[in-house]
Amino acid sequence: MRLFRRILLALLCLLAMPSLVPSLALAEDGYDLWLRYGKVEARFLGPYRAVNAHVITPNRTSATLTAAGDELSRGLSGLLGRPQDMLGGGDVVAFRDGDVLFGTPRSAPRINALKLDLAAAGDEGYAIRSVMAEGHKVTVIAGNSDVGVLHGVFAYLRLLQTGQSLAGLAITDAPKSKLRLLNHWDNLNRTSERSYSGLSLWNWSQLPALDKRYTDYARANASIGINGTVLNNVNADLRIYQPAYLAKVAALAGVFRPYGIKVYLSVLSSAPIQIGGLKTADPRDPGVIAWWKQEAETIYKAIPDFGGFLVKANSEGMPGPQDYGRTQAEGANVMARALQPHGGVVIWRAFVYSPDNAQDRAMQAYKEFVPLDGKFDANVLVQIKNGPLDFQPREPFSPLFGAIPKTDAMLEVQITKEYLGFATHLAYLGPLYEETLKADTYAKGPGSTVAKVIDGELFGNTLTGMAGVSNIGTDPNWSGSIFNQANWYVFGRMAWNPELSARDVAEEWTRQTFGNDPKLVQTSVAMMMASREAVVDYMTPLGLNLIMGHGSHYGPAPWDDIGDRPDWKAPYYHHADAAGLGYDRTASGSNALEQYFPQAAAKFADKSNLEYLLWFHHVGWGEKLSTGRTLWDELVVRYTGGVDAVKKMRAQWNGVKGKVDPERFALTARYLAIQQAEAQWWRDACLAYFQSFAKMPYPKGEKAPAHPLNYYESLNAAKNLDAALASGLSN
Amino acid sequence: MRLFRRILLALLCLLAMPSLVPSLALAEDGYDLWLRYGKVEARFLGPYRAVNAHVITPNRTSATLTAAGDELSRGLSGLLGRPQDMLGGGDVVAFRDGDVLFGTPRSAPRINALKLDLAAAGDEGYAIRSVMAEGHKVTVIAGNSDVGVLHGVFAYLRLLQTGQSLAGLAITDAPKSKLRLLNHWDNLNRTSERSYSGLSLWNWSQLPALDKRYTDYARANASIGINGTVLNNVNADLRIYQPAYLAKVAALAGVFRPYGIKVYLSVLSSAPIQIGGLKTADPRDPGVIAWWKQEAETIYKAIPDFGGFLVKANSEGMPGPQDYGRTQAEGANVMARALQPHGGVVIWRAFVYSPDNAQDRAMQAYKEFVPLDGKFDANVLVQIKNGPLDFQPREPFSPLFGAIPKTDAMLEVQITKEYLGFATHLAYLGPLYEETLKADTYAKGPGSTVAKVIDGELFGNTLTGMAGVSNIGTDPNWSGSIFNQANWYVFGRMAWNPELSARDVAEEWTRQTFGNDPKLVQTSVAMMMASREAVVDYMTPLGLNLIMGHGSHYGPAPWDDIGDRPDWKAPYYHHADAAGLGYDRTASGSNALEQYFPQAAAKFADKSNLEYLLWFHHVGWGEKLSTGRTLWDELVVRYTGGVDAVKKMRAQWNGVKGKVDPERFALTARYLAIQQAEAQWWRDACLAYFQSFAKMPYPKGEKAPAHPLNYYESLNAAKNLDAALASGLSN
Repeated sequence: MRLFRRILLALLCLLAMPSLVPSLALAEDGYDLWLRYGKVEARFLGPYRAVNAHVITPNRTSATLTAAGDELSRGLSGLLGRPQDMLGGGDVVAFRDGDVLFGTPRSAPRINALKLDLAAAGDEGYAIRSVMAEGHKVTVIAGNSDVGVLHGVFAYLRLLQTGQSLAGLAITDAPKSKLRLLNHWDNLNRTSERSYSGLSLWNWSQLPALDKRYTDYARANASIGINGTVLNNVNADLRIYQPAYLAKVAALAGVFRPYGIKVYLSVLSSAPIQIGGLKTADPRDPGVIAWWKQEAETIYKAIPDFGGFLVKANSEGMPGPQDYGRTQAEGANVMARALQPHGGVVIWRAFVYSPDNAQDRAMQAYKEFVPLDGKFDANVLVQIKNGPLDFQPREPFSPLFGAIPKTDAMLEVQITKEYLGFATHLAYLGPLYEETLKADTYAKGPGSTVAKVIDGELFGNTLTGMAGVSNIGTDPNWSGSIFNQANWYVFGRMAWNPELSARDVAEEWTRQTFGNDPKLVQTSVAMMMASREAVVDYMTPLGLNLIMGHGSHYGPAPWDDIGDRPDWKAPYYHHADAAGLGYDRTASGSNALEQYFPQAAAKFADKSNLEYLLWFHHVGWGEKLSTGRTLWDELVVRYTGGVDAVKKMRAQWNGVKGKVDPERFALTARYLAIQQAEAQWWRDACLAYFQSFAKMPYPKGEKAPAHPLNYYESLNAAKNLDAALASGLSN
Repeated sequence: MRLFRRILLALLCLLAMPSLVPSLALAEDGYDLWLRYGKVEARFLGPYRAVNAHVITPNRTSATLTAAGDELSRGLSGLLGRPQDMLGGGDVVAFRDGDVLFGTPRSAPRINALKLDLAAAGDEGYAIRSVMAEGHKVTVIAGNSDVGVLHGVFAYLRLLQTGQSLAGLAITDAPKSKLRLLNHWDNLNRTSERSYSGLSLWNWSQLPALDKRYTDYARANASIGINGTVLNNVNADLRIYQPAYLAKVAALAGVFRPYGIKVYLSVLSSAPIQIGGLKTADPRDPGVIAWWKQEAETIYKAIPDFGGFLVKANSEGMPGPQDYGRTQAEGANVMARALQPHGGVVIWRAFVYSPDNAQDRAMQAYKEFVPLDGKFDANVLVQIKNGPLDFQPREPFSPLFGAIPKTDAMLEVQITKEYLGFATHLAYLGPLYEETLKADTYAKGPGSTVAKVIDGELFGNTLTGMAGVSNIGTDPNWSGSIFNQANWYVFGRMAWNPELSARDVAEEWTRQTFGNDPKLVQTSVAMMMASREAVVDYMTPLGLNLIMGHGSHYGPAPWDDIGDRPDWKAPYYHHADAAGLGYDRTASGSNALEQYFPQAAAKFADKSNLEYLLWFHHVGWGEKLSTGRTLWDELVVRYTGGVDAVKKMRAQWNGVKGKVDPERFALTARYLAIQQAEAQWWRDACLAYFQSFAKMPYPKGEKAPAHPLNYYESLNAAKNLDAALASGLSN
């Protein structure tokens, strides 16, 4: 097939070149993500000459090893520009210099004979080694498991894609966390709650019929080490547990299995009533306990390696154990005990806050879960959002990290940009993830980072993990924009290794995605690394948060006061008044500070820490900040700086025109233009609003918004755009 | 730019062929629709040699003429495999044999000098002539208007795409109807009520930023003569009239304008209240009259060539003039008078029926509108669905056609397959449209076809038109499947010329879409021409209707009795009982027959007319039909025949493997597999259900369904799949 296409292409090129132009789609639509295996740049061809065109396959094969071999063949053929021979691994084939071998010691006796030390590769990791084997210099890609080998193949190909040396390879790598999951907030009708990239990938009406795209999704995930996917929205539609749907889920699980990816499902605490027809869902009720066991049997019969449940309970209207006076732990454990015999886990979300609770929303999850520490079964993880609120452009880390040492804490971040400009705004989230992972909780003194909490190093947890709310949909480019692919990528890479630097991953992604042109790499990385801070500055500088459009979470609406719930209104979060701005969370206010360990709290209490200033402090408009400017002046400067940073990104991108294919260049340029206009909108709307309290003049050189406040209110993300955007479909 | 791409492609081919294969998307995703300009088959190159590589452009240009020139250049370059020179039309360029000239007499003096008779080309039509000009044999593509020229260019390119002779061309063509519109049932959140091809094309959150896809949409429509598009759902969200949205609508109108396509919007009768803040929407209220005038001014200020309003009123819960005791005509006229000074029209839908009306639903629109004949203003059209109910696989024509001679009647058909298997089932709707258009109303004696009603020939109407409910969305292939593109195509072609035959259009589309291989053409046309009848047979044979899943309109549910409205339950339509099956609409029943002119009624009354048998008659299970079989036996034979017809289509398609690119082949093959499984589901579920009344044995050689009735009820399209499918997104 591949050969046929090659011949076809050659014929087409020779015979009909001009006529090809209009109809042949040279479309760089971004579908290939970072798995692009175009021929490497000329300067790398020399160094890579040593790679033979021989791939030595294992003796014993499996679906996973077949996938690994296919990927290696496809990748090397493309990258080196010559077809690869796939040679059976039996003794018949004599090794030659430059051969590439892959397999486990068990599947490939000739790899076993090399006595590689694979201890550090663990269950899912790999070793890539340049060794002498049977008198020849060969490269071995090995692992203790088939999926480890697959991960190794992707890592090896990444070396070539990014122009690394292939000499003297002595790599061993293994994931630091056990569960590395995507959370799809996808509904059965194929809408998605907060994805901005088309429809849900899961084509329920056509499943169990399969689409090539499911395989490519699995390939992309496996290439960055993601090993699980929650298919449905945490606001779960329980019809997914009907037999007809379970068969569809099983079909997807079958596609993902060879790639080491397990399927998980969201469920509700009320399932015993809604699915089971019971009168109660009380976790202490014997009928309920029995029902969960039965339901687990049913699920595992359809999907023998089912990963487990993700649960949002007693949060934003969802049912939960508290409806029966039981704790979150009891709610989780009843499910966990049903899954335990089958090897499944329960992932229980800590995103709980109540409309009836007068306490600072940022403090509620801590209050709820700290008393439960140690009460969860061994196969339960508590999944905690990076910040105490809700995926803002910047939040301090959640005080729960480090505070529940006897609980397996899992980090939840968003890959999708619910609050950072949906699909269009360029905002690379690597620095946000890194900021959280490297944040020091001081739980056991300095160096007690969130990364060490979640990878188990700090408290010795063995069930560890990280979850990312997916930005993946049916858009040809998967993620709504080219640069959004980087957020999927960096999530996977950091879930695998929380110590990676955002900058390194940005470069790695850029090289794989756009190639190794030095100026292009430098530009792309510079844009990416500045991008999230730009969003912080033009949306929510200095620790501001949750001033986005009501419901839609799009566009500025600091004035928003729609609805009955005070904790869903913007003023609840920014506390603007005639005196100043910001939420006092010190001892004189809600004292959320006390939920942090003292050294961490001291940092947040320090008003020179401007990043979190208005998160923790109500600051006078005229108060001088550590920059020497008043709060009002600093606010203006930051908002303007955010807009300027977007202008700079546009200029940088225009500077690499011609170094990127026209399609991906144009799409990105178009989105940057939208981003600039909307950054300006954000700046002007927010400043017009805050100035109505501050009543101070604009600092010298700073322009007042072009329109009065009521103009921006009339644009009104909250009222005009809300319904159009709230479904999460509008981008 | 085009040259650059050509060079780039050549270099890529020469330098890096093998490495290209994995990353270069040779993907035939169907995006190019029927506008595929690959090089013509070798056997046509000889005959087309006479076409020079010179295109002579008009002296005066316009956005439309520029689009025409671009299309001609792109098309000829691709089809002939050599670049075209675009030569200015001034006297400097000497004609050469084989030149192609295009323009209007006004824009091109040298065309004017030819004194072509363009009277029959009208406002939007064209002439394509082989003529001697200044001593040379040239081809002229001319029209009275720029858009006529554009239509001519597409028609000329179609000649080459379909392998027609270019010798002695003497073509003049003009549309028979004035308004040829797409109706998008698209919501502002980008869902679509009944499209099954991804999201709405209109990216409201990014507009007024433009996407290339909008231009390609306009090109595709212009190529088949569509000249208007209603952007939003008839169940209208009035926020589209807010200034921010009108600016977005204006941006789209700007893209479509050069292609001769006007933008229309759906509106509600209640707009004066909802948008205007008035206390009433009574069409006689002076404030309401003034408000509509004001609103029209606002719209035309933003979109000077705005087409007009589409209105669904007093139907399925929509507000309307009857809320104030006014007639539908008064409701339409108040809007029409506001639009009239600006040249706009009101398209008033006749799809009205009431839950409170005990009368046969199929009779209600007629009762409502016949008394209003002559009461509508001159710029109002009444848009009538092809059948009296709702877009079933087969319906008799609506009795309103021919019954309101003083009203400008517009035909509404579905291009999307709400009731014919969504995106996956292959059902070419050309025969359905043709059946309606050629149906004889006998309004003025034999030959009074629906086509002649709607094109104005029968009653002398000057405002004429045809509307198609769009199947277009963001799927790369636009329409959810390759063959669904043919329904968009045939709609446009038949709206332009209602006398075209479905078969001819099928062939035309096939040649443009798949090429001119004789076996492939023959196969595709055979499949298409049999496909809709297959759907009729496996879903609703013998005049059955509306036994689809509740709400979703997907899958069999003849047992459906969900909800309070009897007219939304299946038994209302099929009247199955121990005695027999079918809705008695003769004089002994609802007498819907009386709404037809006598000769038409006589045909429907004739029980040997099996196509409409159960629509008009309650027939005993054991009654012998004109085929010699009992009703029960005939029903079984038809259902089985439908399944067999799908099996045949699959075999036919497999027979052209290798003659179609792998991607479009595989997608179609996958969908045919789904169609076969679902055809079987339909047959078995319906027969199991009807047999529970008939209690007769299966005829010899016919298999009973594999499962008992309750199994099919438990699959239950109505309950299981409904919510997943009801949004219209699930395919």
